This record gives sequence, structure tokens and C-alpha cells, in this order.
Amino acid sequence: MSERLDLMKRALQSFLNQCITAGSLTVELASGERLTAGDGTGLPLVVVLKDTKAVRELFFHPQMALGELFTDGRLTVSGGSVYDLIELLGQNLHTLTPPQFGQVRHVLRNVFDRWTRRNSERLSRHNVHHHYDIDDRIYELFLDADRQYSCAYFETPDESLEAAQLAKKRHIAAKLLVEPGAKVLDIGSGWGGMALYLARVAGADVTGLTLSPEQLKVAQRRAGEKGLSSRVRFRLEDYRKLSETFDRIVSVGMFEHVGLKDYETYFDVVRRSLKDDGVALIHSIGRLDGRSAMNPWFAKYIFPGSYVPSLAEVFPAIESASLTVTDVEILRVHYAETLKAWRARFMARRGEAKELLGERFCRMWEFYLAAGEAGFRYGGLMVFQIQLAKKIDTVPLTRDYIASEEDRLRASEAAVADRSVAAE
Amino acid sequence: MSERLDLMKRALQSFLNQCITAGSLTVELASGERLTAGDGTGLPLVVVLKDTKAVRELFFHPQMALGELFTDGRLTVSGGSVYDLIELLGQNLHTLTPPQFGQVRHVLRNVFDRWTRRNSERLSRHNVHHHYDIDDRIYELFLDADRQYSCAYFETPDESLEAAQLAKKRHIAAKLLVEPGAKVLDIGSGWGGMALYLARVAGADVTGLTLSPEQLKVAQRRAGEKGLSSRVRFRLEDYRKLSETFDRIVSVGMFEHVGLKDYETYFDVVRRSLKDDGVALIHSIGRLDGRSAMNPWFAKYIFPGSYVPSLAEVFPAIESASLTVTDVEILRVHYAETLKAWRARFMARRGEAKELLGERFCRMWEFYLAAGEAGFRYGGLMVFQIQLAKKIDTVPLTRDYIASEEDRLRASEAAVADRSVAAE
Repeated sequence: MSERLDLMKRALQSFLNQCITAGSLTVELASGERLTAGDGTGLPLVVVLKDTKAVRELFFHPQMALGELFTDGRLTVSGGSVYDLIELLGQNLHTLTPPQFGQVRHVLRNVFDRWTRRNSERLSRHNVHHHYDIDDRIYELFLDADRQYSCAYFETPDESLEAAQLAKKRHIAAKLLVEPGAKVLDIGSGWGGMALYLARVAGADVTGLTLSPEQLKVAQRRAGEKGLSSRVRFRLEDYRKLSETFDRIVSVGMFEHVGLKDYETYFDVVRRSLKDDGVALIHSIGRLDGRSAMNPWFAKYIFPGSYVPSLAEVFPAIESASLTVTDVEILRVHYAETLKAWRARFMARRGEAKELLGERFCRMWEFYLAAGEAGFRYGGLMVFQIQLAKKIDTVPLTRDYIASEEDRLRASEAAVADRSVAAE
Repeated sequence: MSERLDLMKRALQSFLNQCITAGSLTVELASGERLTAGDGTGLPLVVVLKDTKAVRELFFHPQMALGELFTDGRLTVSGGSVYDLIELLGQNLHTLTPPQFGQVRHVLRNVFDRWTRRNSERLSRHNVHHHYDIDDRIYELFLDADRQYSCAYFETPDESLEAAQLAKKRHIAAKLLVEPGAKVLDIGSGWGGMALYLARVAGADVTGLTLSPEQLKVAQRRAGEKGLSSRVRFRLEDYRKLSETFDRIVSVGMFEHVGLKDYETYFDVVRRSLKDDGVALIHSIGRLDGRSAMNPWFAKYIFPGSYVPSLAEVFPAIESASLTVTDVEILRVHYAETLKAWRARFMARRGEAKELLGERFCRMWEFYLAAGEAGFRYGGLMVFQIQLAKKIDTVPLTRDYIASEEDRLRASEAAVADRSVAAE
């Protein structure tokens, strides 16, 4: 037993030497023994492992164990935060040339997931409940006031989170070419922010679908408060049950929950639910390469049932649904910046979060936000916005209309704000 | 024999009745007998079949036979042009719901092509020679003055071909973010228009590769005439032989000639030849859906060895090359408008074309331009521009830079024009 531990210790040291070439990292074992690596620059980060089993877990399942040990308090970080640790790992692993050892396992897991995991309507409800029906107040602590729980669109690098989330809604609305009175479907409407924007600013008639009773309640209350209940309806409904048709379909941060096996179904529903001169906009997290698969810790603790696809995995389903792809935008640094802003807000109000859901939850959430950011900076994650139509000439000839639609929407936002002030 | 002919005649009549619901079409057989279909509206189009074998060929291989019979003069059109005939077929076939009969065969052909046809360096040279080394003067008759033989970019629907081709070069240069002195590679440099633009207007140092000795000669002559020989080099070279690295890579209208089996090689060469902070822009014809395959007549007579991919067929190779996709623009109506302009110019100078290459060539070329346009209007063809990088932050945060780069290039075009005038 002690011999095996020794073996793993040496393997860990060799791994550290191989990986950490820039920056510093010390690992303190339960015995008090310290392994160090790096070039001595940067923060004097120390990872403290509280028990002997932790080494083994890290060795055999690094991606799963790091988050689990941190959440359970069996791994702590001193000389910096868990964010600094993940940043250090991200920067160093990033510079290694692929394929990494361990990649083979991820690819296998990926293939396995693809053929076995299918999100039934019941399982989808369960998955959504897992993440979105926890104490609602937790989201108030780190999201913007409109509770946009998806990648913001930073028009400039130093834009505020509030402004970038508003810009995201505007950018998507611009690509949807929404006219007043247009019938819009929002698949995965969350707390209603996108639907309310489309109704208030673009004058649309919106139907939002969610599987979360908590989100539904909040969204309906907000529609009522803004006097928009007649023009925005939210329903607790699986998208696969849809039977109406719409002028426009928007789906933001929902496709991640669909799962690879249901992509054909998803795009078939989009085609079936879209009028002939319709436009749809799908906004989702994606992977830049075919190698990296779903992080197992995220899949287990944060987003069960979710799957982050590469474009090569998405396009076959779009093409088999006979939808016309009219634009694909790739947002790269935006989600890293969004998660960074969320973590800063969360850490500033960590005391309140602890009162609501306890210390263990706070550690898990801190890890989630930090690791998520690293995934977008170093891990090959991105966000894609795919615009779809049924006909080749529904969307204008060039993409210049996006900027002019944004100008129009900006003016409308100002007019709506003036009316609100006048009404008070 | 006469019984079989009668059977096919009845089948043809039934096919016509099924297909032609809007507009009018009469088919006149060699016997003088006439089959009619349609609602009697539109042009009184008559297709005249000169011999009895033509019916059988049309029946068994419609896509191949239509072009062959027209080229050989065994099928003529009265009451309108072959363009009007193709337009009528396009509009009517377009409204039928897929899957069409015949689609199965196309899918099979597609699969077959995928695994069997590989463009060796020798075959590539042969294919290029087939299309580009015919009497050079023919291209002068229908292309713009800069000989842009790829999809133009119409900023407005009624822009002239010259302006739209200039806008295409500008749009691509803008996406490449070219700085003065940047080392740019042009894979498939044709008659040199793109390379010369990048050197003259953006101040780049350009290396263009072509497999056509005729194109090489013209491109080199043009570089010399413009005094750019020191900054633009053209080489007769297969892209697979490259061993240098570049800041930027551009490839316009060449990817169509690569063939499905070489996509991984192609993107591996792009990755290998691109510096770490490099940007590449691939402009190619693509298919919107997974069903329609390469038109066999085009593959045999116009572009042997070519293959028009769907995005689902392109992305696996991009991802396996570990390239970062940073933008995908889908140009839909643009190539239909380009081909329409080319056909109008060609028809206006058909007499000169006939003197150069004969009547048979003229009929083939007229069919090519008309059928090509219909392919982009009704046949699910489009053009994609895929922008690639190696790092996630090489290209700016949002796509707004494209418009401002275009403004900058427009100003530089004007300055270059002023200098040219002053030098004269």
C-alpha cells in the first residue's frame, strides 16, 4: 500500500515536471511532504491534499477528482485561489502538443455518450430541475439584473456585464429580423429575459418554453410586472410537443441540453415549427475541435445530460432537416469574460451564498465558474450562433443588416426606457 | 422497339404532368409528335428532340442527357432560350417535396465518389488543364476586366459585376486583416486578381500558387505590368508541396477542386503553412443539404475532379487539423447573380466565342452558365467563406472590424487609383 502510494507520488512528480513549465506549483501531501514544479515565477501556489486517498483519485481521474476534492474540502489552495490554480493548469496544458495522454479516454467517453445517453422528456425535466430549481436567489447573486444565464456579447473588451448581456439580446434580435407583431418562439426561455426583450423592444408576440417550474414562475411574474402578459406567454413544455408554427424561433443556451442523439429531432422540430419565410437563431456552447469531450465533473455535478458539440456534429442534423444555414458566428473570448464577471460577483457575495446553500455548494460553484472560464480560454470551448431559414432569400443579401437592425433596436430600447420613466 | 419507345413516351408525358405545374412546356419528338404540360402561362417553350435515341437518354440519365443533347445540337429550344427552360425546370422541381425519385441514385453516387475519387497531383494538373487552359481569350468575353472567376459579392442587388467583384476582393481582404508587409499565400491564384489586390491595396507580400500554365503566364505578366513583380510571385506548384509559413492564407474558388478525400490533407497544409498568429480565409462553393450531389454533367464536361461539399463534410477535416474556426459566412444569391451577369456578357459576344472555339463549345458554355445559375437559385448550392486561425484571440472580439477594414481598404483603393492616374 505504502509502496503503491510511493509509486503514485513519483508519477505525480513526473507529471508535474512535465506539465508545469511556466509558473509555480507545490503539492502538499497528507504526510506534509511537498512536491514542487515550475520555473519559480508567478504566484506561490500550494495545493494541499488532506488525505492519502486524494492522490490516487487525482492520479486516475484528474478531471473528475479536482472538482470533487475541492468541493469536498479535501483539496485546498493557498498562495492564490482555485481560479489561479486552474489558470496555471490551463496555460501550461494549453502549450503541450496534442494528442495528450488521456485524450483517448475522452474520445472513448465521447463515443460512448453519443450512443447511450438519450434525453427522454422525463430525463430532460430531471436534468433541468437539477440545475435550475435550486434556491432561486443564488442566481441573483452573480447574474445581471435581467438574469441572462448564457454567454454575453462584449462589443468592446471592457464593456460591463449588464451592457454586454443587453448587447447579446440586441445582437440576436437583429439576426432574427423581428417585425412588430411577429410570432416568435423561444425554446428554453429561462427567466424570460430574451422573450421580454423581443416583446418590449421589437414588438413581437412571444411564446417561451421552459422545463423549470421555478423559471416559469419568475418569467410569468416578470411579464405581468412589465404589463406584457398579453404579448408574452410562458409554458412548462417540452419543445418536442410543439404543434404551432412561428415567424421566428430563438433558442439561447438550450441546445447544450439536447444531447447528441436528439439533434435530428431538434432541427426537425425547428423546421416543422417555422413558417416558410421564417428565421431561426440557435445560440449554444460548442467545441472547436473533435478531440475534447464533455468534462465529466461538469456532466455529473453542474449540467447532467448536457453535451457540448463541435460544428461537425451539428451540421449533419441541420442538413438532414433541410434547413438553410444562412450565417454562423463564432464567439470565442466572450464566454470566458462572462464567466469571469459572474465569478467576481459571486465571490463578492459569497457570504450570502453560503447562508443560502452552505459552504460545500459555494466551493462547487466557485470551481464551476473558474473551470468554465478556463474551458473557454484554454480548453477549446466557444459559442456558436447559427442562423437558419427555409428559403435562400429570406435573410438579406449581405450581413450589413445586422448593424442597422442593432441601431434600430438601440433606438427602440431608448424609446421604451423613456416611456417607462414617463409612466412612473 | 417501337413498343419500348411508346412506353417511354408515355412515361415522359406522365413525368411532365407531374413536374410542370406552373408555366408551359412542349416536347416535340423526332416523329413530330408533341407532348405538352403545364398551366399554359409563361413563355411557350418548345423542346425539340432531333432523334429517337434522345428520349431514351433523357429518360435514363436526365441530368447528364440534357446538357449533352443541347451541346450536341440534338436538343434545341424554341419559344425561349435554354436558360428559360432550365429556369422553368428549376422553379417546378423546387416546389416538389423531397425526397425526389432519383435522389437515392445521387446519394449513392455521392458515397461512391467519396471513397474512390482522389485527386493525385498529376490528376489535379490534368483537371485544371481541362478547364483553364482552353483559349484564354474566351474568359475575356464574359468575366470582368480583372478576370475574377468566382462568386462576386453584391453589396446591393443592382450592383454591377465589376463593382461586385471588387467588393468580393475587399470583403475577403478585410477578413484577412492584412497589414502592410504581411506574407500572404494565395492557394489557387488563377489570373492573379486577388493576389494583385492584396499587394497593391493592402501592401502585402504575396505568393500565388496555380496549376495552370496559362493562368501563371497571365498572372506574371499582369504583376509585371503593374510594377508589382517584387511583391507578388506566382508559382506553378501543387499546394501539397508547400514548406514555408505565412501570416495569411487565402484560397478562393480552389477548394471545389480538392475533392472529399483530400480535405484532411488540405487543412493540414493550411495549419502547417500558417504562422501561430495567422488567419486563413477559404471561399468555396458548397451545398446546403446532404442530399444533392455533384451534377454529373458538370463533373464530366466542366469541372472534372471537382466536388461541392456540404458544411457537414468540411468541418470534420477542419477540426481534425486543430484549426480554430472564427467565422462562417454563407453567400446565397450572390453566385446566381454572378452567373447571370456572366451569361449576359457571354451571349452578347457569342459571335466572337464561336469564332474562337466553335458552335458546339458555345452551346456547352451557354448551358453551363444557365444551369449553374439555376443550381444556386433552386438547387441548394451556395458559397461559404470560412475564416480560420490557430489561436482564439487573433481575430477581433466581434465581426465589426470587417466593415471598418472595408472602409480602410476602400480609401486605399482610391489612393492607389490616384497614384496610377498621376503616373500616367
